[in-house]
Amino acid sequence: MISAMTQRIRPLLLVLFLAMVSNSVVVCTSRHQYWRPSDGPEGASYCLSWRLAVEANNVRAWRTVPTQCLRHVESYMIGGQYDRDINFIIDHVISYLDGVDLSNDGLDAWILDVDDTCISNLIYYKGKRFGCDPYDPDGFKTWALRGGCPAIPGVLRLFNKLISDGFKVFLVTGRDESTFGQATLDNLQNQGFIGYQRLILRSAAYKGQSAVVYKSEIREQLEEEGYRIWGNVGDQWSDLQGNCTGNRTFKLPNPLYFVP
Amino acid sequence: MISAMTQRIRPLLLVLFLAMVSNSVVVCTSRHQYWRPSDGPEGASYCLSWRLAVEANNVRAWRTVPTQCLRHVESYMIGGQYDRDINFIIDHVISYLDGVDLSNDGLDAWILDVDDTCISNLIYYKGKRFGCDPYDPDGFKTWALRGGCPAIPGVLRLFNKLISDGFKVFLVTGRDESTFGQATLDNLQNQGFIGYQRLILRSAAYKGQSAVVYKSEIREQLEEEGYRIWGNVGDQWSDLQGNCTGNRTFKLPNPLYFVP
Repeated sequence: MISAMTQRIRPLLLVLFLAMVSNSVVVCTSRHQYWRPSDGPEGASYCLSWRLAVEANNVRAWRTVPTQCLRHVESYMIGGQYDRDINFIIDHVISYLDGVDLSNDGLDAWILDVDDTCISNLIYYKGKRFGCDPYDPDGFKTWALRGGCPAIPGVLRLFNKLISDGFKVFLVTGRDESTFGQATLDNLQNQGFIGYQRLILRSAAYKGQSAVVYKSEIREQLEEEGYRIWGNVGDQWSDLQGNCTGNRTFKLPNPLYFVP
Repeated sequence: MISAMTQRIRPLLLVLFLAMVSNSVVVCTSRHQYWRPSDGPEGASYCLSWRLAVEANNVRAWRTVPTQCLRHVESYMIGGQYDRDINFIIDHVISYLDGVDLSNDGLDAWILDVDDTCISNLIYYKGKRFGCDPYDPDGFKTWALRGGCPAIPGVLRLFNKLISDGFKVFLVTGRDESTFGQATLDNLQNQGFIGYQRLILRSAAYKGQSAVVYKSEIREQLEEEGYRIWGNVGDQWSDLQGNCTGNRTFKLPNPLYFVP
């Protein structure tokens, strides 16, 4: 009986199936569809504006992600677009690299930031409501001392390309040297960042300085040593501003926190 | 016959209808849904990455919008998000203004770019496939000489606030002075930009110079005249880089074209 009915309605089922499929496509490709996390379209628009303003360095010195953007930032970070944005930029860096004319004097340098550039704190920030919770120095210390930050795959790909091209790669981080020195070395090693020239952490001399001032001074010292800084990649504008910023700078996305 | 069959399959139709509806809803509100113009989800992700990279100054010296991003850029520009992004930034500029301590010496200055900062070329770019067509100097000349660029409402709101707060507002544009001087004056006037200190166009002395060099020199001259540049708003990174950039810079979105 069921089989006979199925036979009879097969053409109808096909039409309905096609309607179902095409409807989904029409609904989801219509012009005004924005990415809609659970805060609804209006909230999503606000959070799109907020995130763009953060990435273009219009919004500065922000302490936490706006609570209404929790789901937006979560979706962005773990839904695939963050990874795609990173890979897009890294592909672009690699195109730039192809046009760089290296000398053989061993002084062609490249600078990479560490946190959320080479290695990711996303797992930690999942537990901090994707940046909606205020900065927790003790919590971060416990996390970072474990040395378990995973590599950001796109940046590891760039790192390996830089090393094989013959660049001297300097990893420059605002992490405190005495507290995080060994854990950071171990973490970079266990994630495959091998062959860099120097890992530079914040020594006592730079304690309390802003990242812009501290990192500018480090880059100035490298230039005084004779290095030519061809490129500089970081997730914070403070990695990329100040003096001796490098021939090209590249800003990776980070909607989770702000470092002055 | 058909009626009898419909009777029999009614429950099935209901189930299929519910499946169809719920499927659409699930597809369109699930976590990984991004804004999807007609270029499909993969294209949309690519264009989101491209636009973010442009706004964060990672992609530079681009000549045209990638053809596959035509619908994405169109939707962004005319679908409301561009306006929301502008207004978000302008609200943020106004918060910053509230913290500025003005003196009474008449030397507190503010710089605004003109094209796609004060007044919009969006109508023109609609006819140029939203930047997918290459730059057409003759076409742009004809358009700009008409003096019909509409004000960008958020920026006009900022302008009026700056004037009423007592800032000396300088409008600095890369437009050629001899060609566009009168048309630009008229256009700004007919759009309500009234009461600014000076409109500075590119004189013969700066012909052929990059915007960064030309605009830096103009700002240097203003500082030599004693002005304090509190803020600087433009849609191009070349408006905001170089020397004497101002105490704060604000980058408005522009995915239509790049000015070096």
